[in-house]
Amino acid sequence: MTVGRSSVTVDAFHRGAFDLVQPAAGGHRAGMDAMVLAAAVPDAFSGRVADIGSGAGAAGLAVLSRCPNAKVTLIERSPEMLDYANASLALESNSSFSGRAVVIQADVEARGKDRHAAGLDDNSFDFAIMNPPFNSANNRRTPDPLKADAHVMNNRLFENWVKTAAALVKARGSLAVIIRPGSLHELLDAMKGRFGGIQIKPLMPHAGKVAIRVVARGIKGSRAELTIEPPLVLHPAHGSGFTVKAEAIINGQTCLY
Amino acid sequence: MTVGRSSVTVDAFHRGAFDLVQPAAGGHRAGMDAMVLAAAVPDAFSGRVADIGSGAGAAGLAVLSRCPNAKVTLIERSPEMLDYANASLALESNSSFSGRAVVIQADVEARGKDRHAAGLDDNSFDFAIMNPPFNSANNRRTPDPLKADAHVMNNRLFENWVKTAAALVKARGSLAVIIRPGSLHELLDAMKGRFGGIQIKPLMPHAGKVAIRVVARGIKGSRAELTIEPPLVLHPAHGSGFTVKAEAIINGQTCLY
Repeated sequence: MTVGRSSVTVDAFHRGAFDLVQPAAGGHRAGMDAMVLAAAVPDAFSGRVADIGSGAGAAGLAVLSRCPNAKVTLIERSPEMLDYANASLALESNSSFSGRAVVIQADVEARGKDRHAAGLDDNSFDFAIMNPPFNSANNRRTPDPLKADAHVMNNRLFENWVKTAAALVKARGSLAVIIRPGSLHELLDAMKGRFGGIQIKPLMPHAGKVAIRVVARGIKGSRAELTIEPPLVLHPAHGSGFTVKAEAIINGQTCLY
Repeated sequence: MTVGRSSVTVDAFHRGAFDLVQPAAGGHRAGMDAMVLAAAVPDAFSGRVADIGSGAGAAGLAVLSRCPNAKVTLIERSPEMLDYANASLALESNSSFSGRAVVIQADVEARGKDRHAAGLDDNSFDFAIMNPPFNSANNRRTPDPLKADAHVMNNRLFENWVKTAAALVKARGSLAVIIRPGSLHELLDAMKGRFGGIQIKPLMPHAGKVAIRVVARGIKGSRAELTIEPPLVLHPAHGSGFTVKAEAIINGQTCLY
């Protein structure tokens, strides 16, 4: 299969409940991070979700798959990645998403009037999810330019991304972000005054090891105190694969918090 | 027993390895928090430790108890609390601390020249520990004025306390602070540019519950990224008392990290 001039893969997620079209090589390939981020949306959720900087749409589609009363808007500036998203939504195997997904080309860092022109109204979403480019500028750079575009983010980008999320989400709506632990302070700075009641959820590769990722979820306008939640341990001490809990979360059987 | 006009208790810590004199009622009574904070100093530590805002000295004495090559300076502004500290150091049961403990009356928020006049030189400590007043100003106030003095802290105080720690500690020296999770962002703000390589250690009452305390440890001048460590779980799922790990840490058998 090809999208434009690129060769692609079609990967099954949530034990085959939906399929994702994404580039076979290069670009940012979706996996565990996107599935865990999607799981930050509660099981009983009903409403509109913005997947901000959605890439090919893995996290947003995972929300649609687990939450039958969710509608998702994928927001991405790369036309190539949006081609993949549209290809996914056109698959017969994803027909249950019909009428519940919208794809919008927009730069997350665009000014408000540019967002509005793209069809993104302020205070119109109940939940936003964000899997921002991971590595800070002083980390190892990746050679692939498309991959670098998705993986490099500086502090200013955190500020701009969270600011956009705060504009899009209604009062008392939520934002969930998956980050590297090393970005925690920058993320808290960006959320301050916008999202409160922040719940820090560390992801540990094994029990007793330092976290490799953190999900932070907050509520717009809340003044509740930050909490640190019990970690999600991904892999069992012995044997391969995932723990029972991680397996259920990654496969859309249950939510993260 | 009395110190000045107050009635006091003498409490055994570290399974009887040392005794602490403290007020019988009122004031801030030391317990688990001070023991866990002291455990942030590595087992093999050798050098000078500043217990900043030491109160009666529980954390500092716990470091002396576990680390035979440590020398500790207790820094506290309350003459009453320092009387308790001196009473502890005069106990026959604490004679192993002889020549390793210094008590200095100083306000942690005093200016540098006032600290210097009190005998506290800049860049002269290898490690600082800090159990700051816990509850932020918008939390429940405690009626006892002495207790309130130890328990209420605003953001400015965090900034001032960490600034003092950064002045007292040598380059590549360490600071460990025990806080409520709700104060994490304020603490990170205060540590920024002063202490890096911050290791966040959550303390959970039980597995699967949110943290009740956080210990944050950093290195002066380090540019290493923040990490989130596996939590210390205090109590077992069934039965009373502490987990084996928490019991060992609280009783000075091993260090926290």
